[in-house]
Amino acid sequence: MKLFSVTFLALLSASNAFTLPFSNGAATSIHRGGMQSSNSALASTIEKADTDVDLESFLNEGDLEGNFPMRAKFEKTLREAQISITKAIEEIDGEATFQEDSWQRPTGGGGKSRVLSEGKVFEKAGVNLSVVYGTMSREALRAATEKGDEIVKDMAPDEKVPFFACGLSSVMHPRNPFCPTMHFNYRYFETDGGAWWFGGGTDITPSYVNEDDMKHFHGTYKEICDKHDPNYYKEFKAWADRYFVIQHRNETRGFGGIFFDDQNEKDPEDIFAFSEECLNSVVKAYGPIIEKHKDDEFTQKQKEWQLMRRGRYVEFNLVYDRGTIFGLKTGGRIESILMSLPETARWEYDHVPEPGSPEAEFIDVCKNPRDWV
Amino acid sequence: MKLFSVTFLALLSASNAFTLPFSNGAATSIHRGGMQSSNSALASTIEKADTDVDLESFLNEGDLEGNFPMRAKFEKTLREAQISITKAIEEIDGEATFQEDSWQRPTGGGGKSRVLSEGKVFEKAGVNLSVVYGTMSREALRAATEKGDEIVKDMAPDEKVPFFACGLSSVMHPRNPFCPTMHFNYRYFETDGGAWWFGGGTDITPSYVNEDDMKHFHGTYKEICDKHDPNYYKEFKAWADRYFVIQHRNETRGFGGIFFDDQNEKDPEDIFAFSEECLNSVVKAYGPIIEKHKDDEFTQKQKEWQLMRRGRYVEFNLVYDRGTIFGLKTGGRIESILMSLPETARWEYDHVPEPGSPEAEFIDVCKNPRDWV
Repeated sequence: MKLFSVTFLALLSASNAFTLPFSNGAATSIHRGGMQSSNSALASTIEKADTDVDLESFLNEGDLEGNFPMRAKFEKTLREAQISITKAIEEIDGEATFQEDSWQRPTGGGGKSRVLSEGKVFEKAGVNLSVVYGTMSREALRAATEKGDEIVKDMAPDEKVPFFACGLSSVMHPRNPFCPTMHFNYRYFETDGGAWWFGGGTDITPSYVNEDDMKHFHGTYKEICDKHDPNYYKEFKAWADRYFVIQHRNETRGFGGIFFDDQNEKDPEDIFAFSEECLNSVVKAYGPIIEKHKDDEFTQKQKEWQLMRRGRYVEFNLVYDRGTIFGLKTGGRIESILMSLPETARWEYDHVPEPGSPEAEFIDVCKNPRDWV
Repeated sequence: MKLFSVTFLALLSASNAFTLPFSNGAATSIHRGGMQSSNSALASTIEKADTDVDLESFLNEGDLEGNFPMRAKFEKTLREAQISITKAIEEIDGEATFQEDSWQRPTGGGGKSRVLSEGKVFEKAGVNLSVVYGTMSREALRAATEKGDEIVKDMAPDEKVPFFACGLSSVMHPRNPFCPTMHFNYRYFETDGGAWWFGGGTDITPSYVNEDDMKHFHGTYKEICDKHDPNYYKEFKAWADRYFVIQHRNETRGFGGIFFDDQNEKDPEDIFAFSEECLNSVVKAYGPIIEKHKDDEFTQKQKEWQLMRRGRYVEFNLVYDRGTIFGLKTGGRIESILMSLPETARWEYDHVPEPGSPEAEFIDVCKNPRDWV
């Protein structure tokens, strides 16, 4: 069971995994005990949807299955990060605020999306929390992974797989073509027979090459990695370069970062500490790059180039991101899954940048990932 | 063999199938006997790419396999339609012209794309010819269809499936939000053991409901259908409504048209005649709607709504269109496959049209397909 559970959920979890198993819990409107104290600082800036279901935790407290303390601790970390990251992004934007939508999953758990639209600095930014558990069908498994058929071949047609998953995932699309898009996702899984693992990563997708920015972004994560394990950065940087590939273009989506999955070889407390530090360093790694470039001058042609790169982002997310595809095909909350798509994207037929241009240099990096630090 | 061949290739052929098996034959530059006479009228308006391989036919004339006369006749019909349709679209546009790229497929056949970009009336319009033959691998089959595993389970790992396919496929995206997008695809297949069939269809994707336009479009195809078979329109209209569905949104992509596949129960000459008439009526069905609305006034909000519908078009093509997905995953000529994507598309988080608005009426039709004639 371990093998397929790890394979299945790990694949699922690549990007938007945590919004996947949600049905749109718009029907229920349970408000239990108000907001957490750390939440109230931001409360005034968050518009509540009618469909709001704001629980302090999506865990079922009466049910102490699995490693309950870790489940609860990880959820708390994710909730706090969702608040602190969205607050920092609102400050950078200076105008727009996040809209919050919460929901419950009838068969276990729930989620909370925060999405900022039409900001001054950000065209769109979303941070999704989800905490889901229950069982997955054979059909869901089959849709979820390339190896689905192999994995499910010994399962009975109606066999279900118990699982627990919680994570925070995010994509931020700034307006200025010199401000990169950023994505992160940190998650904790448990499944049948006591199996557990952590996964996650933060990666960056500029439209132009800026070595200093990349040194800062990769350098921030290298420093964190090195504190926890001397092999982490090398291994997880390479993993990101392998995963975020638009296969039909033979290009990476962006300039990578770190990506890891199936981490269960160490003490869970150690991997938790690493994941928590990665998550809590998102603003430190990304924020200064946006502050630096948010008012850069640009031409219409540079904006169009950025929108073509946004088109590539859409291609990756809709064609290759297993979490997205699985979610779309199995009834996840669509608006939470697709908040990762940009406000606008562009496709020009057979566009080839002029040799020697900054756009050609960009493509070269997408075809030959660089070491930045 | 019949069963899986029909299932496999029919699924492939849904939209962009004919560009799929092409590798980018940019290397070869064979120019054999100049252009056809019917082509030369348009020659001055078509920019030739360096990679051009302009053959009079992509068939191997020395090889009289299968129903060679039908292969040749269908290819000729497609080539003539590609010229006449692109000429008519250029005339409607009044400014932009089609760029032509031809290529050969090393393992059999070739193709020719004509793409118009940044026109006055059309933001993007493409018409792709392809004539391909050879064999398909088990892996290609598995990727091509939902039933892939079932279909290939009795095949040896290295077994190949002989096939021949030719078709013309097209998507046109006009600028004005009151001008609908249009897609068509007409194709002829042969495979192992003498199996053959025709498939095709023309469908329309507006951003607003205009009953007169839909009566004209559907009425044109109903008239053709009725001339050939009293059951065709009812059956093929329903088929389009079933196929062009964005499943995760529970919405149709547009307002349908006709869609048919696996047609081999009649004399091939009869089905050929029907397909030919459908293909040659594309301009009659679509052109007047564009002429009528190309100068309509519109607001920025209406333009944004159109771009959000373009986003839905992207979702359908990248997530559900089997031809596109198979092509992307198995190394087709990317620019020909993805010419179906719009120049620009838009995603707004959780956009819900105001009740009673024209946009809400549009969504209602996407959720409840109407009978227009």
